[in-house]
Amino acid sequence: MEFTKMHGAGNDYIYIDGAKNVIPEVIKPEVVRKLSDRHFGIGGDGVIFINPIEGADFEMEMYNADGSRGEMCGNGIRCVAKYVYDHGMTDKTKDLAISSFGRNRYLDLTVSGGKVTMVRVNMGAPILEPAKIPVEESKFRDKDRIVDYPIPIEDRNFRMTCVSMGNPHAVVFVTDQDNLSEFPLEKYGKKFENHPYFPQKTNTEFVHVDDRKNVHMRVWERGSGETLACGTGCCATAVACILNDLTEDEITVHVLGGDIICRWDRQSGDVYMTGPAETVFEGSVEI
Amino acid sequence: MEFTKMHGAGNDYIYIDGAKNVIPEVIKPEVVRKLSDRHFGIGGDGVIFINPIEGADFEMEMYNADGSRGEMCGNGIRCVAKYVYDHGMTDKTKDLAISSFGRNRYLDLTVSGGKVTMVRVNMGAPILEPAKIPVEESKFRDKDRIVDYPIPIEDRNFRMTCVSMGNPHAVVFVTDQDNLSEFPLEKYGKKFENHPYFPQKTNTEFVHVDDRKNVHMRVWERGSGETLACGTGCCATAVACILNDLTEDEITVHVLGGDIICRWDRQSGDVYMTGPAETVFEGSVEI
Repeated sequence: MEFTKMHGAGNDYIYIDGAKNVIPEVIKPEVVRKLSDRHFGIGGDGVIFINPIEGADFEMEMYNADGSRGEMCGNGIRCVAKYVYDHGMTDKTKDLAISSFGRNRYLDLTVSGGKVTMVRVNMGAPILEPAKIPVEESKFRDKDRIVDYPIPIEDRNFRMTCVSMGNPHAVVFVTDQDNLSEFPLEKYGKKFENHPYFPQKTNTEFVHVDDRKNVHMRVWERGSGETLACGTGCCATAVACILNDLTEDEITVHVLGGDIICRWDRQSGDVYMTGPAETVFEGSVEI
Repeated sequence: MEFTKMHGAGNDYIYIDGAKNVIPEVIKPEVVRKLSDRHFGIGGDGVIFINPIEGADFEMEMYNADGSRGEMCGNGIRCVAKYVYDHGMTDKTKDLAISSFGRNRYLDLTVSGGKVTMVRVNMGAPILEPAKIPVEESKFRDKDRIVDYPIPIEDRNFRMTCVSMGNPHAVVFVTDQDNLSEFPLEKYGKKFENHPYFPQKTNTEFVHVDDRKNVHMRVWERGSGETLACGTGCCATAVACILNDLTEDEITVHVLGGDIICRWDRQSGDVYMTGPAETVFEGSVEI
């Protein structure tokens, strides 16, 4: 079976043409676990099948490394766009429609030398209403958003801004003195993740604002721990920065895996994320 | 550049035909680091180039993931044998001579359906003399070997047997009550590694003897921490088991990455290691 290993800001998946490689549903989770294993398999954060579908240009059928279905991945969808363009499956560079878990996203492609280098994704509008994020507690019931709200965790009094980009995020800001690169994410991230405020747990972004156009961010993803990049986390970070009037409407989020540009279009309400998509290698594997 | 990803008991390297892919020496460490990265590259414990050489059938030129040169890897050399046979570069299945860091090793191949499945490697004779392992302390000066010797580490009184298979090993035995799969390797392994007895540090094997033909082992490798398998560690384990009369001369060492059979031939003095070699996938990458 032919595959392509790609990454977006270090978030790496194994990409497979689902039309050419039909794998029975029942064995897919097992195949995904085997292929994703970083020592015994190809290695990756999971597997993404690219399928034909009605109502969109392509479908991305995403699986996490443990074989479970993933709903959407901002770094992954950029790579899907690069895959279909670079493999000659489309010549669209504007409004490429990719369906993930039943929802269409629209992508614009930057092409250089016949290959896609950067992709912009309309990630949709952030959800700020506490019950819909969800952030639940009687004192949040009358609020329409949670911005700069105190939350004591261990020895620290953090202030969080809560945003859903389809999944829940708590964004907190750290100071120069905290030294973000040395910040003990594991200690605090786990406590946020399992805090009673978050009935579906939460991803937490620890953000240092460099200036009004640049921030550095490290992310603790629920269920995964610290990761190199989180597309929805970058978008949530931008929204939180803007709500707290810390930055302009377009910022570069510097994450461990690279740089992501996020813009909150206040007119349409949508957040646009622009970032790299890279092919690492092509291969073939027996399954 | 074409490559093959292979593993032996979970110890995974990227294998490259050095005759077809000549990379300037000066950029090799950088290329190795890039290819070995598990998120941005192919991913592996390192890169092994397979070269033509005089005085042996092939040379294995091994690099660790950090770009440094590796001297020898028992799991890697089995994969080299599979690579050259499966790719039609040799038809030898007996006494295949592979040179690693200037020293020849001789390998016997088990072939099934035209492909190598198992490989036996003559790993040479163990070194037991304390100064040559090296284990250094005035009280070891008159000893010709260190067998079942007490070494207190933190809250435990371990008893170690010291063996060099070209690199230093301290083998300690754990009981049923210790529950090897839950044993806190990090806590004790680091203390062994940096103990003043070991001027060049040490690898440490924590071994549970199941019966006279089977042991379970977990290994703490100096500089790497816990790994899935360590070929020389399996051999050192067999030697230590035999010196303590805990097993027969041939045992199966069950490690996290699979099973390795080790036999100490008391007549020749050599240790033979037999284990699997597997191809995971073939690929091509731009460097």
